[in-house]
Amino acid sequence: MSDATRAATPRHIREIDRFDLETDVVVIGFGSAGACAATEAAGAGAETVILERGWRGGGTSAESTGQIYMGGGTPLQKACGFEDTPDEMHKYLVASCGPGADEAKIRLYSDRSVEHYHWLTGHGVPFDMGFVDYQVSTMPEPGKSLSYTGSERAWPYREIAVPAPRGHTVQNASGEVMMQRLMQAAQDAGATVQNGTQSETLVIDDDGRVAGVVARVDEREQLVRARRGVVITTGGFVHNHDMMRWYAPDLLRCGRAIAAEGGDDGAGIRMGIGAGGAAIRMDAACIVLGFAYGNRKNIHGILVNTRGQRYVNEDVYQSNHGEIALKKQDGQVYLIVDDSIYEPVPTGMDEEIFTYNVAAVANTGEELERELGMPENSLSHTLAVYNEHAARGEDPLFHKERCWLRALDKPPLAAIDLRVDNAPYSLFTLGGLRTQPTGEVLDTDGEVVAGLWAAGRSASGIPAQGYNSGLSLADCTFSGRMAGISASGADG
Amino acid sequence: MSDATRAATPRHIREIDRFDLETDVVVIGFGSAGACAATEAAGAGAETVILERGWRGGGTSAESTGQIYMGGGTPLQKACGFEDTPDEMHKYLVASCGPGADEAKIRLYSDRSVEHYHWLTGHGVPFDMGFVDYQVSTMPEPGKSLSYTGSERAWPYREIAVPAPRGHTVQNASGEVMMQRLMQAAQDAGATVQNGTQSETLVIDDDGRVAGVVARVDEREQLVRARRGVVITTGGFVHNHDMMRWYAPDLLRCGRAIAAEGGDDGAGIRMGIGAGGAAIRMDAACIVLGFAYGNRKNIHGILVNTRGQRYVNEDVYQSNHGEIALKKQDGQVYLIVDDSIYEPVPTGMDEEIFTYNVAAVANTGEELERELGMPENSLSHTLAVYNEHAARGEDPLFHKERCWLRALDKPPLAAIDLRVDNAPYSLFTLGGLRTQPTGEVLDTDGEVVAGLWAAGRSASGIPAQGYNSGLSLADCTFSGRMAGISASGADG
Repeated sequence: MSDATRAATPRHIREIDRFDLETDVVVIGFGSAGACAATEAAGAGAETVILERGWRGGGTSAESTGQIYMGGGTPLQKACGFEDTPDEMHKYLVASCGPGADEAKIRLYSDRSVEHYHWLTGHGVPFDMGFVDYQVSTMPEPGKSLSYTGSERAWPYREIAVPAPRGHTVQNASGEVMMQRLMQAAQDAGATVQNGTQSETLVIDDDGRVAGVVARVDEREQLVRARRGVVITTGGFVHNHDMMRWYAPDLLRCGRAIAAEGGDDGAGIRMGIGAGGAAIRMDAACIVLGFAYGNRKNIHGILVNTRGQRYVNEDVYQSNHGEIALKKQDGQVYLIVDDSIYEPVPTGMDEEIFTYNVAAVANTGEELERELGMPENSLSHTLAVYNEHAARGEDPLFHKERCWLRALDKPPLAAIDLRVDNAPYSLFTLGGLRTQPTGEVLDTDGEVVAGLWAAGRSASGIPAQGYNSGLSLADCTFSGRMAGISASGADG
Repeated sequence: MSDATRAATPRHIREIDRFDLETDVVVIGFGSAGACAATEAAGAGAETVILERGWRGGGTSAESTGQIYMGGGTPLQKACGFEDTPDEMHKYLVASCGPGADEAKIRLYSDRSVEHYHWLTGHGVPFDMGFVDYQVSTMPEPGKSLSYTGSERAWPYREIAVPAPRGHTVQNASGEVMMQRLMQAAQDAGATVQNGTQSETLVIDDDGRVAGVVARVDEREQLVRARRGVVITTGGFVHNHDMMRWYAPDLLRCGRAIAAEGGDDGAGIRMGIGAGGAAIRMDAACIVLGFAYGNRKNIHGILVNTRGQRYVNEDVYQSNHGEIALKKQDGQVYLIVDDSIYEPVPTGMDEEIFTYNVAAVANTGEELERELGMPENSLSHTLAVYNEHAARGEDPLFHKERCWLRALDKPPLAAIDLRVDNAPYSLFTLGGLRTQPTGEVLDTDGEVVAGLWAAGRSASGIPAQGYNSGLSLADCTFSGRMAGISASGADG
């Protein structure tokens, strides 16, 4: 295959004369999931070796802005005066991470999220005790770690669960600092890190149990025995064109991958499948269409499809808009704004990524629909109805929050081009190995694959098919911990 | 697991002292794919054994109406005066079976579809040399096998490829007769049929090659050696609740499975995964929402979502409407008709399945939108715009074919309830093992799993993620043949 090394054919232990290295637990990958898995496994007394492909760890997490979705009443939430409970968090996540949300994982995480906060801060991950409302500010603010990073206040979610901000952004939005602390924690716990090591495939024994890893260091093969098991934490598969094509062809239309260079090639998922694991929800992805980054006023605009119809409340979270536009509107959408909203260049954002093209400008809705090639009385009707109600603070179609409602009556009007071929749809994959909340990998019969765990984006986790910012790091760190504990044998 | 026997853990050949039965090729399942695979394998000289779970073969195909999608200039198309070419067929199928259509399989089938017609008729599958236009007739007509069974004439497809009818319905719409002929063909070719045999899992050898099948006959285990290989043709997984939940939770909202009782439990797919095969497009399905079965006039109506917006041209084929409504409109749609269209009970169809509920009746669009709880000026605007253009034979939004356009101006108006919880969404799964056009199963690295083939609904095939009636039987019979030839070694 063209994209990456072969991984799906396990090596049988009978073909191995002797191992170069023996340990209790092998963790493949030293991103956030791997670091947390190793910290827990080593902390529980298991001899633990981390095999990291790069010359240092960190993975995609180190390149992130360090947003971690936590709630249920964390110290940061309390310090900022917000009430939250595990039940409200659970209700919100089930509603926003479906259809088919993994309720067992969501339940466990909602119940233990406060404990997870203490675990992270206990290992030195820093948060600042302030709240920033992105409705007002367009950028993270120094000294303020808490913010809304999902659709908690948007319809219909605000009717399903009491909204609370649950985005916990690491100090200075530094995923790098977060990863330094987590990598240090793993080493402090006694885990051994071996960088520059490409894990190629798994080793299985006569009973089909995963018993080790075939790795490569420089040009030399290294055979690593794992007495207790292997934890796969190598990320998703957005960089593997072949897997994308066959599992999720729709997603190939998106132009930009959110993933560390050289990572997320699906190797871990393929190893897991080769050992008998089931890979599920492989079409799911976080698809960000951040049309309001840098200019929150854009949420005052309206999103329409090529028939000029609105299709969503514009105040749902940015990381949902890409998925809704791509999967439900064929990626053919525009943002309509008036002159009081429009800004040519977003403030403080990467212009390469977040500058959008204007598809048409006109003084009236009728003119704009003609310019866009839409039928007469389509977009113009949508605008008239929207304006009439927005002036009264109402949105009978989609119940956009009142603070975002304002008639678009300051010409000229502009149609910002959010069609998938012309706008930055950024994504990472959410599908992966089917796991228990313990991280144990399951086969397609629903049986445990002995000796194998997966965590983070190599597994299908809390954000099973729906996303809020911070959920991936939440899931990576927490599912990593659960897998590390389970693999160490400390939970049995 | 609750749903079905375990299948995903292969048996290692070392654990087997001696086989109870040895043959060249084992075919698991005696539906249309299995029968065609066995016919070709045995015909090519390979000793072939068919293991069928039931007390006779037939599977879901025997319960079908025997529609087979063929084209490119078949004798039946020619006899009815229709021109068609492999290229037009290829263009249409690529457009309607995507995103991510399997172009290699579509190319092969388009090129060989006429040959396939001769192969089927040569084995006694009967067609009648007449054409029935379902725009006029609501039912199959005796003596007329050819019809449109897809969206060939609907926008945008008619602009992509020259339309031709490609639905070849077996005489008297008898899938049963078709299966009798195909099962006879397999036996005539020399294949041995062993009914009442539950295949439990695959046997693999030291190299990971598939070498046989662990079966169960009555209470006794039967070990079957396959010198050349195993062909999996056990259908899809719509009857396996666990697989549906984890691979395609959306689909669980549909109430009715199209599958033979006791079949389609995903056992073959699970066996294939257990042996290293990749299962792809597992969320894809044919979802029929046959709102015009029994009353073609319903296509004169308009489909709207809960915001009163039209979202599709109503004349796309019935087997697409379920998927579009479920996946793009959250299964929340209505059909709006007037008094000239409405019929309380469909003609000649199963009333249990095809009787729809009326959600609201009213004399005006304004009244109807109120009754349905839609915002003011939503559905009423949609109706006004539709009626204005329809009276002129135009549909600027979705380009419904002129013959279906007529103003809905004969009150009362009725909203027929097509919401997924209240209407029959019938489905079967389209996802399955990743295969070459030869039927060879591929792993997630894209490498061939030695000794393993799959065909029909156990594989992801021509209808990869989009459906036209007759495509499943076309794919089952043709991919079955390809797999049988390849497994016999006759193509190498």
